[in-house]
Amino acid sequence: MSKQKRFFLQEDQIPTQWYNIQADMVTKPMPPLNPATKQPLKPEDLYPIFAEELSRQELDQTHQWIDIPDAVREMYAYYRSTPLVRAYGLEKALDTPAHIYFKNESVSPVGSHKLNSALPQAYYCKQQGVTNITTETGAGQWGCALSYAAKVFGLEAAVYQVKISYEQKPYRRSIMQTYGAQVTASPSMSTRAGKDILTREPNCQGSLGTAISEAIELALNTPNCKYTLGSVLSHVALHQTIIGLEAEKQMEMAGEYPDTIIACFGGGSNFAGIAFPFMRHNILEGKTTRFIAAEPASCPKLTRGVFQYDFGDEAGYTPLLPMFTLGHNFMPANIHAGGLRYHGAGVIVSQLLKDKYMEAVDIKQLDSFEAGMLFSRAEGIIPAPESCHAIAATINEAKRCKETGESKVILFNLSGHGLIDMSAYDQYLSGSLQNYVVSDEDVQRNISQLEKVI
Amino acid sequence: MSKQKRFFLQEDQIPTQWYNIQADMVTKPMPPLNPATKQPLKPEDLYPIFAEELSRQELDQTHQWIDIPDAVREMYAYYRSTPLVRAYGLEKALDTPAHIYFKNESVSPVGSHKLNSALPQAYYCKQQGVTNITTETGAGQWGCALSYAAKVFGLEAAVYQVKISYEQKPYRRSIMQTYGAQVTASPSMSTRAGKDILTREPNCQGSLGTAISEAIELALNTPNCKYTLGSVLSHVALHQTIIGLEAEKQMEMAGEYPDTIIACFGGGSNFAGIAFPFMRHNILEGKTTRFIAAEPASCPKLTRGVFQYDFGDEAGYTPLLPMFTLGHNFMPANIHAGGLRYHGAGVIVSQLLKDKYMEAVDIKQLDSFEAGMLFSRAEGIIPAPESCHAIAATINEAKRCKETGESKVILFNLSGHGLIDMSAYDQYLSGSLQNYVVSDEDVQRNISQLEKVI
Repeated sequence: MSKQKRFFLQEDQIPTQWYNIQADMVTKPMPPLNPATKQPLKPEDLYPIFAEELSRQELDQTHQWIDIPDAVREMYAYYRSTPLVRAYGLEKALDTPAHIYFKNESVSPVGSHKLNSALPQAYYCKQQGVTNITTETGAGQWGCALSYAAKVFGLEAAVYQVKISYEQKPYRRSIMQTYGAQVTASPSMSTRAGKDILTREPNCQGSLGTAISEAIELALNTPNCKYTLGSVLSHVALHQTIIGLEAEKQMEMAGEYPDTIIACFGGGSNFAGIAFPFMRHNILEGKTTRFIAAEPASCPKLTRGVFQYDFGDEAGYTPLLPMFTLGHNFMPANIHAGGLRYHGAGVIVSQLLKDKYMEAVDIKQLDSFEAGMLFSRAEGIIPAPESCHAIAATINEAKRCKETGESKVILFNLSGHGLIDMSAYDQYLSGSLQNYVVSDEDVQRNISQLEKVI
Repeated sequence: MSKQKRFFLQEDQIPTQWYNIQADMVTKPMPPLNPATKQPLKPEDLYPIFAEELSRQELDQTHQWIDIPDAVREMYAYYRSTPLVRAYGLEKALDTPAHIYFKNESVSPVGSHKLNSALPQAYYCKQQGVTNITTETGAGQWGCALSYAAKVFGLEAAVYQVKISYEQKPYRRSIMQTYGAQVTASPSMSTRAGKDILTREPNCQGSLGTAISEAIELALNTPNCKYTLGSVLSHVALHQTIIGLEAEKQMEMAGEYPDTIIACFGGGSNFAGIAFPFMRHNILEGKTTRFIAAEPASCPKLTRGVFQYDFGDEAGYTPLLPMFTLGHNFMPANIHAGGLRYHGAGVIVSQLLKDKYMEAVDIKQLDSFEAGMLFSRAEGIIPAPESCHAIAATINEAKRCKETGESKVILFNLSGHGLIDMSAYDQYLSGSLQNYVVSDEDVQRNISQLEKVI
């Protein structure tokens, strides 16, 4: 037998606290603003929408470590630690001297990292006596996670699924229903936000921004109901740090430390999860690990957006958030990586990008699936279209290592599997997929509309 | 934190040998016969169809332990050990005093236990210079496993997928194609066996028996090509014993020993895998663990078939095998558990059933999905329709424990996940699924045809 391929933690080695990078940031994120008064928000301003503990976590810039509640740790133990895997197969296929590792979050019961935040969100809602929760979902990964977490803690769940995904990925809808959730295609006629956009644009295929508006509206109009979100927000990034905290210990077991860390980027949840725990060593101890967010060329907020206050949703129900954005009216092309079809980036990540603690690259749809095919055949796991973006960026870095002869250590996050996305692979194999690249004109038009917001 | 939920082995604890129960059986299985001469087969009689090492393993009644080749162990290490899980969620949902454990084979990259035998089969073919392999697949789980294993060892793979599954589960076809295999719906016009049945029955939806005939025919007519099979045969059962051998060590870690072991039953591969290593303690040391095979009521060879020599395939290309069978012309109803739609049982399992080392129960389709729904909501993992049969049988046993107040230890094999089978769950949720129970008349008609074979 050659060297070890997979690294696991024992149950008692699984981290018991999440890491709050806000406490360590040199330049703190600017505060979310009340859109009416333009005043910075306090936690209690968020209580109508979010559970109270989540509202406090959202704005916490003080506590470096936050205890994971026992009930959440109990549920984490059903699928965590997730394996850290040395990708010998991929290294061989690329003939690269790089050492490639991936953190395999696809092994969670719902098939992605999303459960890491769904469980605490459902838990904190339950704790304060909430009975119903709402959310939106793009590709359906977050919706599946939230549906299961709701079932675990005895809550009713209503999910707005972006219409293009609802149609492209009917199996994800079935999974949510199997867990007991109510699923509605968005935009729908069940909310004012949905009606408004369908009136303007009857064939609208939906976006995360619109689905968020619908889910918030339902939460506000339903007694004893809170809204939950699967990415973008700082408390979601906090919960996802369990990924990187585990990976830190596992990389130590492997006897290496990453030179480069890569994750795909939609709102930032899986990127934050794997990156922040390692980034603290850059901030506090001067380590020089590179962090690369891989976003789709069709939705390039990090590489071509502006850093500015914007709404998190299409209808403008959320607070104003300081973020890299393409404008909240930006309607991304119908790529299969539905989880990356979002106009903005979380406030923490946006500040870190601005301050050059991290980088971003954009990946075209066909390149992402080419990378996913190579990975499937080399490692056996078929990656989610979102994760294919991280793999494509990893392959680019590993090829550079081949040119320079450097044995860099690259760690990427395999955020989810693609078993529910096989129709996308089918289209790729049959040559009917295409690239979507946004024109400068489109970017400028959306950003210029945005400048009127404040 | 309460007690441990998941039990893993370190890489160096993973078994290095498979267990060959034939060596320990008090009454050995009767030999396969050459259909023309009715003479017992020797390994070399199988060489035209199977790799030589697999042919030897097939008929080995001597060696208790068979070394797992290094190249196979290397690949096992990518996903093994699979977790042994204490199903606290299911126990709670059933309010049972039983201790329920499951071995989670769904975590393999291809989503089922099938990879355990696909890897050695592809490896032994490669070793002797074979370049192409063929096979059949029912639900598609074996086809996915074989396609990936072929890619790993640099072989071309051609897969005949039972037509009803090809249509019900298009994603499985896409997965095989993503791994690089050629996939054909069976019955097809590409073989004589396929043409014959399509001439008799133009709308035939296929069966495993027919697909096997087609795959064997292609192998026999293609240079440097061997056939591979995902169940039924004794060498497949051998490879699958890695499941039970791991589970033995993991149950020891959990501090318990199973009173009852349950697995779903198609040809017997996952049943043999989890059962045989524990059954050796019944045979050799007088332990009294119960072993229960859960088969579909629509294909009841163990509970209502006869023990007799029969062909393994529909066209009669295979040797005659001593098995519990419904007759090789039996055409099972189109249940979603495609992997269980097979007329016969492996020769080892058939002998063990005859000798009362094990029992069998039949499960109706609706009961299997009801069990799958309960399990999904209690444990988060959506089980394959095949595995739902094992879960239904487990639930029946656990309910009995509730009646009697006994804290029995029940271990079942979760052979695969159901993420590619969500259309079946969809139909269950919408109330459009039905039960299929074979009439006594049907059973008798097929068995009486069979009696003419010898």
